[in-house]
Amino acid sequence: MKHVKKTILFSLFSAFLLQGCCTHKIVVDEEVTQMVMRPTGDLGVIIERATGQVKIVDHSDQQALSEISGLGDLSHASIVYSRDQRYAYVFGRDGGLTKIDLLTDTIAKRVIQSGNSIGGAISQDGKLVAVSNYTPGGVKVFNSDTLELVATIDATELTNKVKNDDGTFKHSKVVGLVDAPNNKFVFSLFDSHEIWVADFSGDKMKLTKFKDIGLFPYDALITPDGRYYIAGLFGEDGMALLDLWHLEKGVTRILDHYGKGEKRLPVYKMPHLEGWAIAGKYAFVPAVGQHKVLVINTENWQQVTEIPAYSQPVFVMAQPDNKQIWVNFAHPDNDTIEVFNTETFEKVKTLKPGPAVLHMEFTPRGEHVWMSVRDSNEVQIYDTNTLNLLKTLSVKSPSGIFFTNRAHQIGL
Amino acid sequence: MKHVKKTILFSLFSAFLLQGCCTHKIVVDEEVTQMVMRPTGDLGVIIERATGQVKIVDHSDQQALSEISGLGDLSHASIVYSRDQRYAYVFGRDGGLTKIDLLTDTIAKRVIQSGNSIGGAISQDGKLVAVSNYTPGGVKVFNSDTLELVATIDATELTNKVKNDDGTFKHSKVVGLVDAPNNKFVFSLFDSHEIWVADFSGDKMKLTKFKDIGLFPYDALITPDGRYYIAGLFGEDGMALLDLWHLEKGVTRILDHYGKGEKRLPVYKMPHLEGWAIAGKYAFVPAVGQHKVLVINTENWQQVTEIPAYSQPVFVMAQPDNKQIWVNFAHPDNDTIEVFNTETFEKVKTLKPGPAVLHMEFTPRGEHVWMSVRDSNEVQIYDTNTLNLLKTLSVKSPSGIFFTNRAHQIGL
Repeated sequence: MKHVKKTILFSLFSAFLLQGCCTHKIVVDEEVTQMVMRPTGDLGVIIERATGQVKIVDHSDQQALSEISGLGDLSHASIVYSRDQRYAYVFGRDGGLTKIDLLTDTIAKRVIQSGNSIGGAISQDGKLVAVSNYTPGGVKVFNSDTLELVATIDATELTNKVKNDDGTFKHSKVVGLVDAPNNKFVFSLFDSHEIWVADFSGDKMKLTKFKDIGLFPYDALITPDGRYYIAGLFGEDGMALLDLWHLEKGVTRILDHYGKGEKRLPVYKMPHLEGWAIAGKYAFVPAVGQHKVLVINTENWQQVTEIPAYSQPVFVMAQPDNKQIWVNFAHPDNDTIEVFNTETFEKVKTLKPGPAVLHMEFTPRGEHVWMSVRDSNEVQIYDTNTLNLLKTLSVKSPSGIFFTNRAHQIGL
Repeated sequence: MKHVKKTILFSLFSAFLLQGCCTHKIVVDEEVTQMVMRPTGDLGVIIERATGQVKIVDHSDQQALSEISGLGDLSHASIVYSRDQRYAYVFGRDGGLTKIDLLTDTIAKRVIQSGNSIGGAISQDGKLVAVSNYTPGGVKVFNSDTLELVATIDATELTNKVKNDDGTFKHSKVVGLVDAPNNKFVFSLFDSHEIWVADFSGDKMKLTKFKDIGLFPYDALITPDGRYYIAGLFGEDGMALLDLWHLEKGVTRILDHYGKGEKRLPVYKMPHLEGWAIAGKYAFVPAVGQHKVLVINTENWQQVTEIPAYSQPVFVMAQPDNKQIWVNFAHPDNDTIEVFNTETFEKVKTLKPGPAVLHMEFTPRGEHVWMSVRDSNEVQIYDTNTLNLLKTLSVKSPSGIFFTNRAHQIGL
């Protein structure tokens, strides 16, 4: 057993103590404390969005270790990890930033840092945690140890929009915040159509702004090597690409036809861009509002082909060995998963895990995948080789699943 | 501080106890125990080859946490980690397999499993540890929890070679053992010119043998996605490639001119193939016996170009962000490191860390690189962005450096 509970007993006092005038028996074999020796390499945190709780899980033993309450509104919540994998930083929708201690199963710190936020990132060196905010629009950067505020980056003022009640201008909402190598954060400004790069590698933060990148960037991804930042556009077709090795080249447009288009199906849910699967030289991309997965050549960012799918894809995720992609779908078809071969593009299997499959997470070397099935209050664990269901865990309204190996991956 | 030393004090007894006929003061504020709460995400183990010891280190605080003795002959020793990152399995040259507990700084188990061994691997599910042996030639597979023997795979008998003293045939030496997805181990047979795949995914181990793969495979690598296994050949030029997604295609030959050739320089040290850097679609490969790094297109396994280098390269390693490769060299030029840009192939800097730079290891997200400088008894830590030396740790004759994030990477 890896999680050794060390119970310190006062049994050395379970004896007769002779002292002074008389003899006493002092029996003190109550437990003083229970300390858990717990390695952190195979842990994870699952968001229980309806109850503002999280569960800490172990993906070796495939069990829940503890449940922590009091995290506020966890709709669309996401998590990053400290570089030692001891702490999970949970970004709540209500502006709450909560630091969970995976060794003691407690909340180490919690701050309400804005009125409305959407995700965050941790710097390459692990010392800074950044949060992207809708209200007030901008990014706040915290010391990852103390959660003390280190920097506030106000997004562009919206001078032609309705003002705040106090007469000040509103600021653009910030989305698609990721970390990049050399202690950079990259993010998109939804209302002002910009991408900004905040560089924290020196003594003073350096901000580089790219304007007119395309209408209403709504989400973004960064490639696993931290080189390319790609934002999806809500206001027009196409995507905005920034090569972080060559900021001087500016933002370019790729995939001109990527988007809602004119004559397409109604879009039930904009796909998650962080779910882009990059396998070899191909990216497997959820089409917007269409029953397709697009296959993109990452050398020239041109579409190679498309794979017919069951419904509108939300997440398209590659196994760690890149051999298969797993796709979930928008409501009302979110009870289904399709698995495709990345070499032949053929469908391998259709799974029906149950109502509202919201998220998937692979074990680090990819032997298993964990799947949140929100409306049946369970997390299902599948073997990625046999595609068989191995185990079901009881979890209340599970959404995001985040394993600690993310601590070691750029952009996660 | 992340490594919280929890000192349980008996201070609740530091008071007057009133009981029976008289009053006593029982002062018991000695320490009962020191337990260390230690996350395992930022740990590592450094081989101290001359003394048969290892040091456990923390790459956040950049310090040694402990030193463990009694590991036998650690020449050419290597390490793999349990999937929870609690245990390091150390493969010694003398056939010793030692399981180190990173939470208690102790040897959890140790077996002498052969007379002479060379490296090992851990299965995708973390349940099996395999060791490749020279004497007797073959692979032994152990339960990773108990180190009980699970399987012995005898290598091919050498019927036309000198026999053992007891009249039995010798078996081929085994090299280049790696793990592959779906609980496979892949390895090469030096004397019998074979590559074998041992599949432990079912109830019974399944062995697939490829013969006549080229003369004297001496080392091998597997690509980070676990798809391609590539063995270097000591007996001829060229390399042997096995596509694990298509075993039916058999072993093919790539890089016909890769090797010692006829009119080349004397080879001071065959380069380490595990050091191959794969960045984007290029592999950066140490040339054999030449002052060059070769650049290979991994789509067709053809050479694209070559980069002139200071001496004969041993390890060519890519930063986690793939932006630069770091190269060390064979004796007598092993005091030098060259850093090259992977995009322009230009040299960025030459470093002179000191005598006998044997190994390098990047922190998981790549902000730092740790470097063993054996003959000055130190490990140097560099910033990969500024290329400045940040810190030096005192370590006795350091060789291999292995950080725990390897637990989550196929083939490591």
